[in-house]
Amino acid sequence: MNISKERLRLQSLKDKIMTAEEAANLIKDGMIVATSGFTPSGYPKEVPIAISKRAEKENLKITLYTGASVGDELDGTLSRANALIKRIPYQTNESIRNAINSGKIEFVDLHLSHMPQMIRYGFLGKIDVAIIEAVAIREDGGVVPATSVGNSPVFVEMAEKVIIELNESHPLELEGMHDIYTPKNPPNRKPIPLTKVDQRIGGNYIPCNPDKIAAIVLTNRKDSVRPLAPVDETSKKISEHLIEFLENEVKKGRLPKNLLPLQSGVGNIANAVLKGLLDSPFEGLEFYSEVIQDAVFDLLDSGKMVIASGTSVTPSEEGLERFYQNIDFYRERIILRPQEISNNPEIIRRLGVIAMNTAIEVDIYGHVNSTHIMGTKMMNGIGGSGDFTRNAYISIFATPSTAKNGLISCIVPMVSHVDHTEHDVMVVVTEQGLADLRGLSPKERAKEIIKKCAHPDFKDALMEYFNKAIEKAGLTHTPHILEEAFSWHTKFLKEGRMI
Amino acid sequence: MNISKERLRLQSLKDKIMTAEEAANLIKDGMIVATSGFTPSGYPKEVPIAISKRAEKENLKITLYTGASVGDELDGTLSRANALIKRIPYQTNESIRNAINSGKIEFVDLHLSHMPQMIRYGFLGKIDVAIIEAVAIREDGGVVPATSVGNSPVFVEMAEKVIIELNESHPLELEGMHDIYTPKNPPNRKPIPLTKVDQRIGGNYIPCNPDKIAAIVLTNRKDSVRPLAPVDETSKKISEHLIEFLENEVKKGRLPKNLLPLQSGVGNIANAVLKGLLDSPFEGLEFYSEVIQDAVFDLLDSGKMVIASGTSVTPSEEGLERFYQNIDFYRERIILRPQEISNNPEIIRRLGVIAMNTAIEVDIYGHVNSTHIMGTKMMNGIGGSGDFTRNAYISIFATPSTAKNGLISCIVPMVSHVDHTEHDVMVVVTEQGLADLRGLSPKERAKEIIKKCAHPDFKDALMEYFNKAIEKAGLTHTPHILEEAFSWHTKFLKEGRMI
Ligand SMILES: CC(C)(COP(=O)(O)OP(=O)(O)OC[C@H]1O[C@@H](n2cnc3c(N)ncnc32)[C@H](O)[C@@H]1OP(=O)(O)O)[C@@H](O)C(=O)NCCC(=O)NCCS
Ligand SMILES: CC(C)(COP(=O)(O)OP(=O)(O)OC[C@H]1O[C@@H](n2cnc3c(N)ncnc32)[C@H](O)[C@@H]1OP(=O)(O)O)[C@@H](O)C(=O)NCCC(=O)NCCS
Repeated sequence: MNISKERLRLQSLKDKIMTAEEAANLIKDGMIVATSGFTPSGYPKEVPIAISKRAEKENLKITLYTGASVGDELDGTLSRANALIKRIPYQTNESIRNAINSGKIEFVDLHLSHMPQMIRYGFLGKIDVAIIEAVAIREDGGVVPATSVGNSPVFVEMAEKVIIELNESHPLELEGMHDIYTPKNPPNRKPIPLTKVDQRIGGNYIPCNPDKIAAIVLTNRKDSVRPLAPVDETSKKISEHLIEFLENEVKKGRLPKNLLPLQSGVGNIANAVLKGLLDSPFEGLEFYSEVIQDAVFDLLDSGKMVIASGTSVTPSEEGLERFYQNIDFYRERIILRPQEISNNPEIIRRLGVIAMNTAIEVDIYGHVNSTHIMGTKMMNGIGGSGDFTRNAYISIFATPSTAKNGLISCIVPMVSHVDHTEHDVMVVVTEQGLADLRGLSPKERAKEIIKKCAHPDFKDALMEYFNKAIEKAGLTHTPHILEEAFSWHTKFLKEGRMI
Repeated sequence: MNISKERLRLQSLKDKIMTAEEAANLIKDGMIVATSGFTPSGYPKEVPIAISKRAEKENLKITLYTGASVGDELDGTLSRANALIKRIPYQTNESIRNAINSGKIEFVDLHLSHMPQMIRYGFLGKIDVAIIEAVAIREDGGVVPATSVGNSPVFVEMAEKVIIELNESHPLELEGMHDIYTPKNPPNRKPIPLTKVDQRIGGNYIPCNPDKIAAIVLTNRKDSVRPLAPVDETSKKISEHLIEFLENEVKKGRLPKNLLPLQSGVGNIANAVLKGLLDSPFEGLEFYSEVIQDAVFDLLDSGKMVIASGTSVTPSEEGLERFYQNIDFYRERIILRPQEISNNPEIIRRLGVIAMNTAIEVDIYGHVNSTHIMGTKMMNGIGGSGDFTRNAYISIFATPSTAKNGLISCIVPMVSHVDHTEHDVMVVVTEQGLADLRGLSPKERAKEIIKKCAHPDFKDALMEYFNKAIEKAGLTHTPHILEEAFSWHTKFLKEGRMI
């Protein structure tokens, strides 16, 4: 495979071009390996596959750090090859999830904004090798990332060696879409100068000492992007409640007419909400989030949204096509930042981001479980939901009111795991309705959540629990019957239904 | 009572001087009343007492907002007079705590940094009257606060009317110790320019339109400060473990020699840790916290600490004397800021604050309960512990390994309420030892916490729960037996002992 001078601009690095197998040989047993990638976007593919092949034949186990979730070529192949000891900070891959929940891999679930600084502070050990997908390497060794930035800047900075997967499937026109800014460590950190979503505060590449680049692997393998499900009735209703709520906030003078920058999780509900905004009266919208999906393209195309900032672009296959075909249009309207900036508390609070995330379950007092199925099994991880929620202007959690065909209530007496506490959750919304919890005490919250959000099949039982808790524990701050708080979960585990 | 021109500098306001009873008549049933005060420091006393007296005779109930906890003249008298409907955001008073836990008062437990902006955003209703303790009123109506700033700036800004308690027990020399900066609301907020603990970024008074000042009440009643318990053996051991940990971080190059700015909760353990620092090798220490107590004076006196920033000075009686006698010395070394700044995520993360807070209980996976006794009864509230913990350079939770004479283990299988999740807790320390949880998965954390922190009386039982959970739930991400997760708590509630 030949590489153009536009992709590899530092000719002296030509020697470093090698096969994925050769590059994979740089990885030794026990190493900490850190890769680019945030969602199935911008992650290395060839070298991880080659590492997996080695691991199938020899004793090779590594600790893997990434930006967030990544594609199956990385998380999937490595975990199926039993090549992982530990994985940080977020994943969505079925193979790795199974390995995590059967004790084969230790998983450390971190706020996505915490990880990069923890690495610079030396809290997570020394990174041996960083593997970064890039669209080009500059004359000075600088790396032009692909469709995601994630933790790549800190990985390149802190790794002893860097392997670049130069991926020609990404157009060179991605160059200029990134905005790379790295805060200094305390005590020398300065204010991050970002005050507007459309502002650029850094350079458009990741600085890299060329001497660190130990291998360059050429490829044109595409990201394994995910198909998008059509918007279902439940998500549509959630979106309607949410938009009505936002309209009312504008009416009450608590939000400007063009709202404030929006953050949205990924998946079905998030997609529906963004699609809902397309038909809403709002104009001049801004997006300050992690992941930019197809619905954001729609909003940008329509002119309703004027700018989108994230740390990765993760469209469907059809969306990727569209993105690349109109890349000059989108490059004016999309900025990709390190997750240390996209998820930064300082910025989120300053901009006044409206955070919309999805919960697995919510309890009557408004605590949210985002990560654990029945209290013990890891689903994906907290991701950026805590970064956004805690620092949001308004923090919103959405969930269908039931799961598993109505056998599970997503509103429960007590969540089986807490990721976001009552202190951080302002609004809960299901297809049944929306509970505005601002300024409410726990007992007031309980009544509001049960009334507005619970499914009719579970409403009475929830109210019964609440009343019985008051009877037993008294009118305490947060009435609970500890013996019964998880009885819905344990019943589900035994009988396959919550009540 | 006469008032000097130095205390009341705007002569036209002389008409507004009235008795506390007259001022209390400005309060109507159902109003939202917001007061100065943060810990028993700088809170109004005369008018609250007068309101309480009215409430004993007539139908008068109000919602009370403060900075944090306040003295008994305010929280105590009002709650005993049944004058409170709702109370936000933190309290430590026994009378009000009892009222909260018997359903007489609805309490909303908020992150202390969230409250001021929620008020400006209009999320907590309109403030009818603010009652602010001051040492002086300026020519322009500006208010010079007393020993705490708390939420006073936002209360004065947003209230329809302001009542000032001009308190001559505080020396005029407090003027110049405050640094008042108020961030704008999104979308117009700018970076908060604070980059060093000793930096001043605002004015030294709270701006106030004099037309808003509806009453001035003169007093020289002192704050009801709290006596300090002597350092006990448990706290001393915790302090030793902590200082050893910090020394090791310096040795490993993960902290500078003079550490980073310290935050510390209040109470016995916090006091012991600060006292421990006095005998430690550290020099040039900085304090970026909420409350400045006697031990901080010791550190400043010794020269080991060079600057202390907080939102209130809350010494013991003896400490208050000392503070006032050397006020010129302390004014050079102490800065009092609004809690919106002292507790601001942007600043805490930028400065790299080392956060040390106290837990009620911690579970084997490192989740922390700071607020609830046996899952249902409110103790004090989350206070600023979340603001500091989430944004800290290193977040530390301390607790004795047992409570109630050893009948309760403060390390439990599952905390009965979560305030700080695994994602936010880096270090747990008891008198038994210190668990460094950075980079550990839940199962690794459990082993570390049980081994290092649990009391010998409970160690085996905790390990037994953990192993049984693995047996029953499998080697999942977070093994738990939901039926038994709270069995220690329910046993304590029934039998008065946890195992
Ligand atoms: C919470 C989260 C898992 C929901 O994702 P989603 O794609 O909308 O979820 P689904 O409705 O498909 O549910 C996922 C699974 O959990 C199950 N589930 C949902 N609610 C459940 C509940 N209350 N109890 C048990 N299982 C439940 C579903 O049945 C489904 O199971 P399956 O995989 O066996 O079909 C996802 O949003 C997430 O990981 N969030 C945390 C991170 C985050 O917020 N990231 C964005 C931040 S910027
Ligand atoms: C957690 C907190 C209550 C501990 O305070 P403290 O003064 O060190 O606590 P104590 O050891 O005196 O314990 C307080 C009470 O709780 C009880 N207690 C302590 N641990 C307990 C446990 N695990 N289970 C049940 N009760 C427990 C004590 O017995 C004591 O009861 P009593 O009042 O009947 O004597 C306090 O630090 C707090 O409110 N923290 C949250 C807010 C905060 O962190 N503020 C500072 C942030 S800047």
